[in-house]
Amino acid sequence: MVPNKKSAVLVDGVVLNGPTTDAKTGEKFVEEACKLIMEEVVLKATDINEKVCEWQPPEQLKKLLDLEVRDTGESHDQLLKLCQDVIRFSVKTNHPRFFNQLYAGLDYYSLAARFMTEALNPSIYTYEVSPVFLLVEEAVLKKMIEFIGWKEGDGIFNPGGSVSNMYAMNLARYKYCPDIKEKGLFGLPRLTLFTSAEGTTPFLVCATSGTTVLGAFDPLDEIADICERHGLWLHVDASWGGSALMSRKHRRLLHGIHRADSVAWNPHKMLMAGIQCCALLVKDKSDLLKKCYSAKASYLFQQDKFYDVSYDTGDKSIQCSRRPDAFKFWMTWKALGTLGLEERVNRALALSRYLVEEIKKREGFKLLMEPEYANICFWYIPPSLREMEEGPEFWEKLHLVAPAIKESMMKKGSLMLGYQPHRGKVNFFRQVVISPQVSREDMDFLLDEIDLLGRDM
Amino acid sequence: MVPNKKSAVLVDGVVLNGPTTDAKTGEKFVEEACKLIMEEVVLKATDINEKVCEWQPPEQLKKLLDLEVRDTGESHDQLLKLCQDVIRFSVKTNHPRFFNQLYAGLDYYSLAARFMTEALNPSIYTYEVSPVFLLVEEAVLKKMIEFIGWKEGDGIFNPGGSVSNMYAMNLARYKYCPDIKEKGLFGLPRLTLFTSAEGTTPFLVCATSGTTVLGAFDPLDEIADICERHGLWLHVDASWGGSALMSRKHRRLLHGIHRADSVAWNPHKMLMAGIQCCALLVKDKSDLLKKCYSAKASYLFQQDKFYDVSYDTGDKSIQCSRRPDAFKFWMTWKALGTLGLEERVNRALALSRYLVEEIKKREGFKLLMEPEYANICFWYIPPSLREMEEGPEFWEKLHLVAPAIKESMMKKGSLMLGYQPHRGKVNFFRQVVISPQVSREDMDFLLDEIDLLGRDM
Repeated sequence: MVPNKKSAVLVDGVVLNGPTTDAKTGEKFVEEACKLIMEEVVLKATDINEKVCEWQPPEQLKKLLDLEVRDTGESHDQLLKLCQDVIRFSVKTNHPRFFNQLYAGLDYYSLAARFMTEALNPSIYTYEVSPVFLLVEEAVLKKMIEFIGWKEGDGIFNPGGSVSNMYAMNLARYKYCPDIKEKGLFGLPRLTLFTSAEGTTPFLVCATSGTTVLGAFDPLDEIADICERHGLWLHVDASWGGSALMSRKHRRLLHGIHRADSVAWNPHKMLMAGIQCCALLVKDKSDLLKKCYSAKASYLFQQDKFYDVSYDTGDKSIQCSRRPDAFKFWMTWKALGTLGLEERVNRALALSRYLVEEIKKREGFKLLMEPEYANICFWYIPPSLREMEEGPEFWEKLHLVAPAIKESMMKKGSLMLGYQPHRGKVNFFRQVVISPQVSREDMDFLLDEIDLLGRDM
Repeated sequence: MVPNKKSAVLVDGVVLNGPTTDAKTGEKFVEEACKLIMEEVVLKATDINEKVCEWQPPEQLKKLLDLEVRDTGESHDQLLKLCQDVIRFSVKTNHPRFFNQLYAGLDYYSLAARFMTEALNPSIYTYEVSPVFLLVEEAVLKKMIEFIGWKEGDGIFNPGGSVSNMYAMNLARYKYCPDIKEKGLFGLPRLTLFTSAEGTTPFLVCATSGTTVLGAFDPLDEIADICERHGLWLHVDASWGGSALMSRKHRRLLHGIHRADSVAWNPHKMLMAGIQCCALLVKDKSDLLKKCYSAKASYLFQQDKFYDVSYDTGDKSIQCSRRPDAFKFWMTWKALGTLGLEERVNRALALSRYLVEEIKKREGFKLLMEPEYANICFWYIPPSLREMEEGPEFWEKLHLVAPAIKESMMKKGSLMLGYQPHRGKVNFFRQVVISPQVSREDMDFLLDEIDLLGRDM
């Protein structure tokens, strides 16, 4: 719509008639960007002949990208070229051979839901602004609570496992002493996460189901016994391991989780819901989340609305704007069903088992420990070290091997997996298996490739 | 790829050959969903003949949507129908007549960037996993710092203004007493946000540039004088008002902001970067963010990597996984240039000014106060109350007017704007002007429509 100059209303020199954006041009740009994304990201995601990454060191990449924002805008052609470069130099976390983090692969249903979220641009504080997404969150939380084994409960999606854990600590503290919201920490006795001889007051035990490096699970039943005896809040950080609850075969890893008071569980990890998708789940049904966090903002949570304001769940959150992260998980769950999600978990753990057996068979590979979950931690020992005694010199040399192989694999772009030292152990690889795009052939390739890159060290 | 049954590798009854997902079918679903999103969300976003919302009460909407997730998955046709329903019953926050929150409108460039983010699914903790997005964040933070008027600084994008403000408080406290990270709060004297006679130690002053309801700005220069005199950390919550810095005409609202120690600024509000896009900016250059927050996770922040690990900025964050929110803002900035963003701010504030003048002209409309920014707060007084004296009965009756009009406008779907009581004032409307899709005609419509819906009350 071109403003009619004759009747144009001017304020401060600004024409106020008609919209100023050119919708047609904008729509065309979005369409072209979608085409590019489809071709360069989605369709190539499953192609093992593509590189996992095209490595450039930071200073070099800065030169390759036109990062500077300027006074005037760039043309659509230039912007599309930029989009191409962004895709080209980004790590392909969807690639079947990206094993570097606790997330991987491409879930088509979650992706469609994520595109919808971005286009609709909702924030989920009140029912009036986000009717669908608040109901979806409610439905998903209810189902997750069922999988934990609680009869009822509450919960909230939030931006990360760390934030879930922070929520849990705050809730446990609030339950122990509701005055904290008014009086602050100094109104409380000095609290501690564990019982101790210091004269401090224990209030919370944090257990972990699926540690980040080793994929280890705490014995929840035994911990719950102790918590019950002493009246302590039991929080389980199942950010990574929680997804095993979807599998009838593997949920025994979390035996006793129904006795927890709160659980952190991130479907963006093993269940591929896309970053971020993290829920904190709370057994208590006395509206503890709301009691602990509500700030009663008058401009959002008016009590004289014409609908049931108990659906305005945003006042349970430390965030004001909040993304509808439950929605993408819900879409995948709808598409695959519980059985489809179970199949994914079972396959990932079966592939892990296969890799473990292959590592045992192959010369030069050494397991750090028998894995409980999808983290397979191992060393690669190059031929030059194989005859050496496992003394200080051996470990010192072995410590250098994983970083050097990692450098080679990144520069080649053939594969990405992580390494780290951990609790006195020198650098070892951590292989994480998640995506249903990954097959036995990729496991074989992984071991072949590490051997290829490391055998002359 | 169909697994070859003859040579199939089985572990725990799971076939491990080949991928298990059907990529072609998945890709087709994403393509169809994109088409739907384009037609039903993007192309309709600018059409004022579309409804802003199609209101359904919660229990009714639950019946209309098939929310239940089941053991088996749904067909693609059913899933696409679901997507249609999700769009249909979602509030159209892109609609030119959505004025309900501090965000609105559709930015095509940000949207393209957001689709890319979802498809690439990055998490920005280390350069090795997110090379492009970490450099983009660095470039955007640098530019925002320039607009604040600092010579140098640091910053981090995070999921919300509340989180930015929490960061600022933690940093100020950490700077005052770095021992807090090891010893906890109880190692500190009792701190307070303001000086007081209680024997507590002042450490922080929080000023606001652009309050949520009234759009009011604190006098930063005067506050900075006091902070300087007493050595206090000055934090400015400019989540909403920060975007006025883009306008040479309106940046005087934040005069003195360069003297702040930290600033919260959300480009997802006035600059339409999409939820969420929030930066905390810090003047200090002694790497305070990292000192205060780093947890040195061995599996992410290895110090023996082959590249410059100072680019692994994730250890500055309380989150582990973190979305590349700077990227969508960067794409818009690239596309419009600083001048284009300035024009948006100028237009929004000129439209606000126009609305204020119209409100003054029209019978039955009454401004709460002269606005400083894009929040126009006003009462609509129905004819039945116009002759009444402004005593207790008048205010009591007026308090009921805004909620009733809001109910009518939502059920009609013609418009959405917020109302609230505030500091002793009875319910009033808050109109927020942001999107360049909005024109004078929409302002006129707004007043006409409120009058139409309210005149018989």
